[in-house]
Amino acid sequence: MYSFDDLRDKIQEAFSILSFQKQPQELYEPISYTLSLGGKRMRPVLLLMGCDLFGGDIAKALAPAMGIEVFHNFTLLHDDIMDNAPLRRSQPTVHHKWNTSIAILSGDTMLIEAFRLMMQVENNQLRQVLDIFNSTAILVCEGQQLDMNYETQKDVSILDYLEMISLKTAVLLAACLQIGAVIAGADVEDARHLYNFGKYLGIAFQLQDDILDVYGDKDKFGKQVGGDIISNKKTYLLLKALELEALSDSISLNELLINNHISSQDKVEAITAIYDRLKVKEFAIQEKQNFYEIAMKELEAIDLPQERKSALTSFAKYLMVREI
Amino acid sequence: MYSFDDLRDKIQEAFSILSFQKQPQELYEPISYTLSLGGKRMRPVLLLMGCDLFGGDIAKALAPAMGIEVFHNFTLLHDDIMDNAPLRRSQPTVHHKWNTSIAILSGDTMLIEAFRLMMQVENNQLRQVLDIFNSTAILVCEGQQLDMNYETQKDVSILDYLEMISLKTAVLLAACLQIGAVIAGADVEDARHLYNFGKYLGIAFQLQDDILDVYGDKDKFGKQVGGDIISNKKTYLLLKALELEALSDSISLNELLINNHISSQDKVEAITAIYDRLKVKEFAIQEKQNFYEIAMKELEAIDLPQERKSALTSFAKYLMVREI
Repeated sequence: MYSFDDLRDKIQEAFSILSFQKQPQELYEPISYTLSLGGKRMRPVLLLMGCDLFGGDIAKALAPAMGIEVFHNFTLLHDDIMDNAPLRRSQPTVHHKWNTSIAILSGDTMLIEAFRLMMQVENNQLRQVLDIFNSTAILVCEGQQLDMNYETQKDVSILDYLEMISLKTAVLLAACLQIGAVIAGADVEDARHLYNFGKYLGIAFQLQDDILDVYGDKDKFGKQVGGDIISNKKTYLLLKALELEALSDSISLNELLINNHISSQDKVEAITAIYDRLKVKEFAIQEKQNFYEIAMKELEAIDLPQERKSALTSFAKYLMVREI
Repeated sequence: MYSFDDLRDKIQEAFSILSFQKQPQELYEPISYTLSLGGKRMRPVLLLMGCDLFGGDIAKALAPAMGIEVFHNFTLLHDDIMDNAPLRRSQPTVHHKWNTSIAILSGDTMLIEAFRLMMQVENNQLRQVLDIFNSTAILVCEGQQLDMNYETQKDVSILDYLEMISLKTAVLLAACLQIGAVIAGADVEDARHLYNFGKYLGIAFQLQDDILDVYGDKDKFGKQVGGDIISNKKTYLLLKALELEALSDSISLNELLINNHISSQDKVEAITAIYDRLKVKEFAIQEKQNFYEIAMKELEAIDLPQERKSALTSFAKYLMVREI
């Protein structure tokens, strides 16, 4: 059994060998750049953990694990164009550093490369692995579309929001684990439980992200604290606060959302004060805890001794208390 | 044996059943719209022809044929964003009718859908079909990048240009035929000859396109005559004319390219006059004829009786004299 850190080392080593030094360099340089920006490499590590859980050969899961990371970075690259984001991991985004055309085309190439890496499994697993990957990739696009819709849509419910983050974020984490399980030759039922574990954990992960945006430690959190508040992003916290305010006939939050004259700092402070008053952080923690517990039940349902699951249990616990 | 028209009817029927009536509709409507704009459906028909040539079951090639068409339309959708094109087949492009974010994401979804359709082959053909499709998709992206590079790059040689159109256009036609052959269970050597036939025919096809842009019949040609001239597009005709002018120390063509005060109509007339004087149309026809003949030699090399090849021979002849 490997730990998260062991597996991340293996992924980093694999990425140091994977080369995109091809021609035309205008196409491949942005790909190397994007992949060099780093990140937690959580998705490929989860794929390896899914394989390791069932005693599979990690070496056989490395290429698909890289494929998942290339896919994830493709989504970030294209999402950054759609969001007109200037920075990603404190570095200029591809469409800012080069231009939009290059960002679109490099992203397309990454998506195709992701399939190429994903195909590096044994023949008798090829269809099963690609079916999971392909259908998940579609769901991620649907999630991104819903996320864009919600920017302007009124009356987004918390259920809508949970559905959206499930598609945009959680199903990919779930698919990583399931693909790893398939490569290890896991039983279909066990692989399904592992998928569900990943999905519910992924929702809890995103809720923790929403909480950290407002309540994260400025020095530890990688992004600007309050960034979601400044951009009026419909997070769990905002939707819950709007729901609670509607019940109390208060309209102060809605007024702040449409106020263009307030400074970013004042807006973050004012909205955080409303969040505090309404105790939305506590609601979010409770919701997160619910999804975490459902996830853990799915993990328990897998027909393996408890000690084999310890790496995943530790990882899940870490995700819940992480500060970055 | 089926004719081109028989097979196009089958493709049209298949597309009339393929539905993208899914949610969120903001994502899927642009996909249905793009596919409804029509076009010659040349690529899926070629895939079916490749299958039919070797006596394969056309029904088994229909889903991959649709996959190729969805892929081709994905490239058009994203290329139109990069070119900032307002119209495609006389209708508004997706980024104009909706917006750039939707065009990027719908295109991404089409690329993933193309893989899904391409996967609908028998298990023992899955890897071979996907290997061809995947590596071809990468080449098409590389070709698009070279095409963008050449917009601003000086000193693009005719060889550079032929390499670019080979990647951007010809290898996809080649791959269609090869995938069809694989589905029919063709011998590897024969499938390779068919691929080469498609590649060389594809280059000849693009050269015919370049000729039609300037010398096409305005009433029959689907696009604005002289569109390439107006946009200074480095076509075979322009590159050949620049090459010949350089030899004769004349600089009138270069002056016209950087003249921003001339009307589009005057520019088309003036540059066409230079093309006529330098006889670049005749050079282009000769070049096209050369590639056509190499293509036909590859077709001849396939170990089948001549009469089985008649549909492909007729199609190749049609491509060379087409006016649209």
